[in-house]
Amino acid sequence: MRADVITATGELQASLRAALTSDMLITDADEMLRFCRDWHGDVSSSAVAVLRPRSTEDVAAAVCTCRDLGLSIVPQGGNTGLVLGGIPDQPGSQVIVSLERMNAIRNIDPDDFSAVVEAGCILSEVKDAVAKMDMFFPLALGAQGSCRIGGNVSTNAGGINVLRYGMTRELVLGLEVVLPDGTIFNGLSTLRKDNRGIDLKQIFIGAEGTLGIVTAVSIKLMPFPDQVATALLGLNSLDDAITLYRRARRDCCDLMSAFEFMPPLGFVLAREAIPDLPMPIAGDYPAYVLMEVSGSGLVDIQELMERFLGGVMEDGLVVDGVIAASQTQARNLWLIREGMNEGQARRGPHMRTDISVPLSRLADFVRDAEQAVSEALPDCISVSYGHVGDGNVHLNVLPPGGTAPEEAAARIYTAKCVVNRVLDGYSGSISAEHGIGRLKRADFEQRLEPSRRALLTALKQAIDPSLMMNPGCQLNFPKLS
Amino acid sequence: MRADVITATGELQASLRAALTSDMLITDADEMLRFCRDWHGDVSSSAVAVLRPRSTEDVAAAVCTCRDLGLSIVPQGGNTGLVLGGIPDQPGSQVIVSLERMNAIRNIDPDDFSAVVEAGCILSEVKDAVAKMDMFFPLALGAQGSCRIGGNVSTNAGGINVLRYGMTRELVLGLEVVLPDGTIFNGLSTLRKDNRGIDLKQIFIGAEGTLGIVTAVSIKLMPFPDQVATALLGLNSLDDAITLYRRARRDCCDLMSAFEFMPPLGFVLAREAIPDLPMPIAGDYPAYVLMEVSGSGLVDIQELMERFLGGVMEDGLVVDGVIAASQTQARNLWLIREGMNEGQARRGPHMRTDISVPLSRLADFVRDAEQAVSEALPDCISVSYGHVGDGNVHLNVLPPGGTAPEEAAARIYTAKCVVNRVLDGYSGSISAEHGIGRLKRADFEQRLEPSRRALLTALKQAIDPSLMMNPGCQLNFPKLS
Repeated sequence: MRADVITATGELQASLRAALTSDMLITDADEMLRFCRDWHGDVSSSAVAVLRPRSTEDVAAAVCTCRDLGLSIVPQGGNTGLVLGGIPDQPGSQVIVSLERMNAIRNIDPDDFSAVVEAGCILSEVKDAVAKMDMFFPLALGAQGSCRIGGNVSTNAGGINVLRYGMTRELVLGLEVVLPDGTIFNGLSTLRKDNRGIDLKQIFIGAEGTLGIVTAVSIKLMPFPDQVATALLGLNSLDDAITLYRRARRDCCDLMSAFEFMPPLGFVLAREAIPDLPMPIAGDYPAYVLMEVSGSGLVDIQELMERFLGGVMEDGLVVDGVIAASQTQARNLWLIREGMNEGQARRGPHMRTDISVPLSRLADFVRDAEQAVSEALPDCISVSYGHVGDGNVHLNVLPPGGTAPEEAAARIYTAKCVVNRVLDGYSGSISAEHGIGRLKRADFEQRLEPSRRALLTALKQAIDPSLMMNPGCQLNFPKLS
Repeated sequence: MRADVITATGELQASLRAALTSDMLITDADEMLRFCRDWHGDVSSSAVAVLRPRSTEDVAAAVCTCRDLGLSIVPQGGNTGLVLGGIPDQPGSQVIVSLERMNAIRNIDPDDFSAVVEAGCILSEVKDAVAKMDMFFPLALGAQGSCRIGGNVSTNAGGINVLRYGMTRELVLGLEVVLPDGTIFNGLSTLRKDNRGIDLKQIFIGAEGTLGIVTAVSIKLMPFPDQVATALLGLNSLDDAITLYRRARRDCCDLMSAFEFMPPLGFVLAREAIPDLPMPIAGDYPAYVLMEVSGSGLVDIQELMERFLGGVMEDGLVVDGVIAASQTQARNLWLIREGMNEGQARRGPHMRTDISVPLSRLADFVRDAEQAVSEALPDCISVSYGHVGDGNVHLNVLPPGGTAPEEAAARIYTAKCVVNRVLDGYSGSISAEHGIGRLKRADFEQRLEPSRRALLTALKQAIDPSLMMNPGCQLNFPKLS
């Protein structure tokens, strides 16, 4: 870093120190590192400072101080995002506001099927706390032991239970947000139905901190599903998997909670990550489905799963299948799904996507995109898996083992362009659940319709006219003259 | 009307006629009447004209023409709203844009569990069309034979199935909207998951046409629930009804689709409206619940309802109950709920509310509010009923029979003030599902927090700076200088 930049940063840090309680402030580069490096470890950055408020009022004070100093703010939860939405890209003028110390569960009301939690609560801790009261918060994703609920809201996180319970948006009853002018938007209601005009909380969900800082959330709870049936199924094709999904929606009514598609390569990758992982199905099928049906109360979930599988196997839609006989067996089935992710990471840098298309076009899309990749990059391998029920597929591309980093980077870039080109013909989304952040900003902007861009710009300028909230994330906005 | 107003209106009508296809335009006062009178028949107004576009382009042209003439627009669907959101209040400068001729079902894709319908489609026609493909659109409300889907979206309509399927918001996948500047926002995607930044469609849902005109909607479909079990239950109190709801959520998992609370007076009112209505439960219980469990496929819904009722009757939570043995019997049970509404209307003008409170405080609220009403208005009768599972109660107050209109109006006003005062102590909502419109604007504004008002104003000025879209609805905004 140049000497004048260091001086400027030092002066800004001194000003922050003078204005805020020192307990809130981190300026040491080593201490800041974990906040400035992304989840995959692909990107490291830095910041003027990291602020760790303990209360909503602290956040408001931090916002006002930053505004006075001309600093912009990158809000951060558990820093588990996959699109660099919480990582500074202008280190000389950006401050990270980490919500990790605002981690109180303010209230759980099982009689009201609701809870109020602070933005810094770790997702799995919220899930555990409500489970003790026999309640359930259905948001479930790989990072749940590290991600924080404010980040889940700001990225409108998805995960494996979306097909039954919806994205984070559908689980939010209310929000508390510190706005760019330092005022506090208090919308922490737990009302299930409240139709008093425009629902303002919606604009902050999925905004990735570009309109304000989410400090607390009212969430919906459900009765804890004490019955879970998990099955791993072998099928003849992705087309059959989609047909199976449609039939499962009807046959299992609304009780299906997960339906994940995996290719045979998934097992190979999972074994690479977890060598002693038991493989519960013999044989090698072109397609696999990991399916979960769950519920509380009087419906016999195990029997429902057995009857469903009996029918679809008789009809030849499912060739082979196993239902977990214990929680351990169910856990092992999910380990295949998780190990598959880790196995990809072990093969080195690779191209990851997070795509959605209409369900009725999913199989065609995967076929076309994999074909296009194999033509453009004959030495790379495609691996497509994901939340089929939501039309959400992670079509990833792995360069061959031992590819030099710069060659891998070139292949990753080519693969992304090839896949996105096919996707554009399917009216699909380049971000089904991960958000835009900084990683997908260019691809997002490139596909943005003028009317949508105009509305987003108007909204940004109305709420954050000085463009201080997470600049560089989602869109580059023009400064108001 | 004064002569100069008549002339001005005549000139405006002539200008509209010159600019738009004459087929779109209604200016005859008699022909305009049905668009200018509200659903209850309480309010009649007029307008410069009624425009009935046949296409999205027609709507855009209408918006541009009105803007050029300095006219504002009151968008209207089926004109079944309960809060005067679609009725002009400045007849000399407002034009009604009725969507009733934009009523094409553009596409139904059962393989994708989605459909695209124009804003003017009547709700029941959409439900019927998808049912022919064995699919289900769950929005269900009293006005479904007349209301139109664009109005449902613009008011974020609720109804009897919200506890399972959510408000209209949760059933919308995408929107097409004509914006106040005449541009078309094309967001008619059917993707289930699309996390590309801020979800702009959310700001138009529930905006009651104050930010633009919804012209088409992509909606979620579900498998048709071919099994429905309906029961009418007699209980000892509203508290027991709430306990029963909590237990039903757990025992019946996510398969409960309606849970309506009714007081004994409901039966009297229903009989006044439908004298030969069969009364399926003998005796007179302090509280009644109309409950529905439904589903498709392999779960035996009838058996689930029987087992559930067996358990709760054994525990004394339900004193008496009947499960409909046929569709006709089920229909008759619902007729009690519907007749209760009609019976109130027959008793003359009365105070209607649409309140929500946290479920855990619902019974206390109803007790306190009814007590306060009986103290303030000892000759009036309170009747509280509604969608208990959503914390949504319609606490209505009926003046005694034969009360003179102006005395009734005074009692209605008093009753509203008394109930709202109690509600304010419960952090409740004055509009759980009906919206704000013009009827509740004053009560809404009076309770509006400054940070919320500031955000709503910023949003309005960003999207509709000339304040031409449905002025007077929801909020009176300050003109930009």
